Amino acid sequence: MSLVAVGTVAFDDIETPYGRAEKVVGGACTYISLAASYFVTPVHIVSVVGDDFPSDMLEYMKRRGVDLDGLQIRKGEKSFFWAGRYHSNFNSRDTLDTQLNVLATFDPVLPESYRHAEYLMLGNLTPRVQLRVLDQLAHRPKLVVLDTMNFWMDSALDDLLKVIARVDVLTINDEEARQLSGEHSLLKAARVIHEMGPKYLVIKKGEHGALLFHHGQMFYAPALPLAEVIDPTGAGDTFAGGFIGWIAKTNDTSFENMKRAVIYGSAMASFCVEQFSIERLKGLTPVMIEHRVMEFAELVKF
Amino acid sequence: MSLVAVGTVAFDDIETPYGRAEKVVGGACTYISLAASYFVTPVHIVSVVGDDFPSDMLEYMKRRGVDLDGLQIRKGEKSFFWAGRYHSNFNSRDTLDTQLNVLATFDPVLPESYRHAEYLMLGNLTPRVQLRVLDQLAHRPKLVVLDTMNFWMDSALDDLLKVIARVDVLTINDEEARQLSGEHSLLKAARVIHEMGPKYLVIKKGEHGALLFHHGQMFYAPALPLAEVIDPTGAGDTFAGGFIGWIAKTNDTSFENMKRAVIYGSAMASFCVEQFSIERLKGLTPVMIEHRVMEFAELVKF
Repeated sequence: MSLVAVGTVAFDDIETPYGRAEKVVGGACTYISLAASYFVTPVHIVSVVGDDFPSDMLEYMKRRGVDLDGLQIRKGEKSFFWAGRYHSNFNSRDTLDTQLNVLATFDPVLPESYRHAEYLMLGNLTPRVQLRVLDQLAHRPKLVVLDTMNFWMDSALDDLLKVIARVDVLTINDEEARQLSGEHSLLKAARVIHEMGPKYLVIKKGEHGALLFHHGQMFYAPALPLAEVIDPTGAGDTFAGGFIGWIAKTNDTSFENMKRAVIYGSAMASFCVEQFSIERLKGLTPVMIEHRVMEFAELVKF
Repeated sequence: MSLVAVGTVAFDDIETPYGRAEKVVGGACTYISLAASYFVTPVHIVSVVGDDFPSDMLEYMKRRGVDLDGLQIRKGEKSFFWAGRYHSNFNSRDTLDTQLNVLATFDPVLPESYRHAEYLMLGNLTPRVQLRVLDQLAHRPKLVVLDTMNFWMDSALDDLLKVIARVDVLTINDEEARQLSGEHSLLKAARVIHEMGPKYLVIKKGEHGALLFHHGQMFYAPALPLAEVIDPTGAGDTFAGGFIGWIAKTNDTSFENMKRAVIYGSAMASFCVEQFSIERLKGLTPVMIEHRVMEFAELVKF
C-alpha cells in the first residue's frame, strides 16, 4: 500500500566508544525509507539535500525502491549536517554541531501522486514542516505515524501539539513521554497522550525495548541483547521504518498487527546499531529479517 | 521442598517522592521469606534482630509459615537499620544512614534441620556471612541462589567471588553485571559471569524487567507498567523470594521452569512496589498472583 515518508536526508559525524565515522550518510528519512523498503516499495520520500549529497547514494536508494520525486536537490547549497558523541553507556549523547543548511528554508512540496498516500510516516523534523505535509494531502491516510523528540517539545511545543492532534500513532522515548505528559508512570503518560490525539503510543526504550499502548491495552517488545552495539544513530528512525513498513505491507491497522509491527521495527533497529551509519541496513534479506524476528519471539516465550 | 533463606531482618526509614515511612519493617530476608511463603512453607530463615523488633511482626511471619528457628534475637541490642531517599525517577537512591547494630557481630548458626536444605537463597548480606552458611550445609542443595549488590563488589570482592563460585544462580542489576564482568554488553557480561561459577544469571532491570541467561540461552521478562510505584524498597528481594519459591514449589530446576520462576518473581516484585514496606505482600492470594502472572503473559503475546 502506498507509503510516504518525510524527514531529513543528511550527513553525520559520529563518535562512539568504538570509533568515529565522518561525513557518513544519515538523516531520519534515509533510515526510515531504507528500513521500510524491505517491506513495501516504492517508498515515496519528502526531503531536501544540497548538491553535495552523493549521487551514488541516491542511486542506491532508487535501486532499493525509494521514490525520490519528492526529494528537492538544491544547487549550490549544502545538506543538513549533525555531529554527535555517544557516552560510554550509549544511553546519552552530546550534540557537537548542527548545521541546518538546506533545512533552514525547507518548504516540502508533495508531488501529485503522493497526495493520496494511504500510509504516512512523519519522521523527526520541524513540526512546521510536518504540518505543511499534512495540509497537502488530498484525504486522510489510513494511518499517520509521527516520530519526534524532546528538542521540539522544548522549542516548538505549540506546533508540535498541532501535529500530535492529527496523527494516529506517536513514537517517542520514555523520558519524552514523561516530559510531554507530565506523568512519571508510563501507563498514566499514555492516558494523557491519548487525550492529545494519538490512539496509539509507542514508547521506545532503546536497549530496554519498546512499549505499545492503545486505550488501556499494552504490549511490551523487549530489545534483543546484542554482543556489540557499534552506533545507535538512526535506531529510532529504523524502528519507525520497519514499523510502518510492516503495517503498509500487510494493510492491517489492528492492534494485534501493530504488535507485530513493533517487533519488526525492533528487529530492523537491532540490525541498524550493529554498524556505523546505514551500513547494516544494506544487504539484509527477508530471511535474515524473519530469523531475527524469530529470535524476538523466542526471547519472551515461557 | 525445603527452603532456607538468609539475609537481614531490619528497620527502614524510606523517603520517596510520594511520602515517608519511618521505622518500618524491612530487610532482605523479610521480603524474601514473605514472597516465598506464597509458594512453599515452611521457609526456614537465618537472620538476627535485636529485642526492639516487634513481636507481632514475628508472629505474623510465623502465621505465614516462616520458620524462625534460625533467627537470633539479641537481648538489649538493636536491629539493623537503613535509611534511604529515592530520587524522582526511582532509578537511583541515596543511603542516608546505616546502623549495623546486631549485624556487626552476626555469626549465623544453622539449626540441624536446616543443614539438609534442598533450596538455599542467599539474600543480600556480607559475603562472609553467606560463606559461613554455605560451610554449615550437610550437602550441596539442589539449587543455591545468590542476591548481592555493588556495595560488596566495592568493599569485599575477594569474599564475594568465593561465594559466587559456589552458587548456581546469581541475581544482580544491569550496572552490577557490568561492574562485575567489565563488559558493557549484557550478553558478554553473562559469558564472563558464567565463567565465575553461576550457570544461571538473572539481571534485574527494575522498571525495564529482568533477563535470564544460561550458557547462550536467553529469556527476557518485561516489567509490568504500573500506574503507581510507591516504594521500590525490597523489590529485588521480593523478586528473589518469588523466584526461588516457585522453583522450590515445583522442584524443577530446568531452564524452562526457571523462565516461569522469573515471571513469578517479577509478579511478586510488581506487588511489592505498590505500597511502602511489606504492606502489599500481606494479604495476597494465589488467585491474585495467578492473575498478575497472566498479565505478564498477555503483555508480550503477539
